[in-house]
Amino acid sequence: MSKQGQELIELTQLSAVVGCGSPLVREPIPAEDAVELARAFKALGDPVRLRLVSLIASHDGGEACVCDLTADFDLSGPTISHHLKVLRGAGLITGERRGTWVYYRVEPSALARLSDVLAMEQGVGA
Amino acid sequence: MSKQGQELIELTQLSAVVGCGSPLVREPIPAEDAVELARAFKALGDPVRLRLVSLIASHDGGEACVCDLTADFDLSGPTISHHLKVLRGAGLITGERRGTWVYYRVEPSALARLSDVLAMEQGVGA
Repeated sequence: MSKQGQELIELTQLSAVVGCGSPLVREPIPAEDAVELARAFKALGDPVRLRLVSLIASHDGGEACVCDLTADFDLSGPTISHHLKVLRGAGLITGERRGTWVYYRVEPSALARLSDVLAMEQGVGA
Repeated sequence: MSKQGQELIELTQLSAVVGCGSPLVREPIPAEDAVELARAFKALGDPVRLRLVSLIASHDGGEACVCDLTADFDLSGPTISHHLKVLRGAGLITGERRGTWVYYRVEPSALARLSDVLAMEQGVGA
């Protein structure tokens, strides 16, 4: 299967899992959903990757290439690329090749749904 | 320093980092904030821990002891306890000993703030 095909499936899986946006505080999340969600949270569980998501999202036009990102880190291009690959694999960003560079964007629906899963409902646990 | 003291500091750090609840898509998150936030996301980046948070939050009264949680997993008590320790260390749950058992609750402000950090703002990246 092509990389893009695999990526599409992963994105679709994440969307399916969190499609309802049901907060995890409301009812126990099923074990199979937890696997997909945990993968996305694990991808965010690294300071470099968290900053990469933030840098890409807040970059001009909402997209950035590795060339825009390396200046913010004391890391090599290949290391940055590795972290971007993990974020892509988790469905948190997408990449589009244009000429020499791949331009990355955050996947708004994936972030929004993770946000929804963590949302507290009024009166819960308070 | 006592465990509780250490826990309080960790909770305070997480609250300070995400106190503003500023979405990471709005502007690049500072490197030092990313370290604390990534720790919390890493704690959620495991299916068992994600389910534990969900089970505790949705349990009667919003609290649960290990005795309430083991039935949902094919894992030993000590393994569950280890995962709970990671969640406590990340400031996502708190524990209170009453008699034989420690009763766990989610830390609503920590979850809510992580949710806020991931929130998409209208028009961003869409």
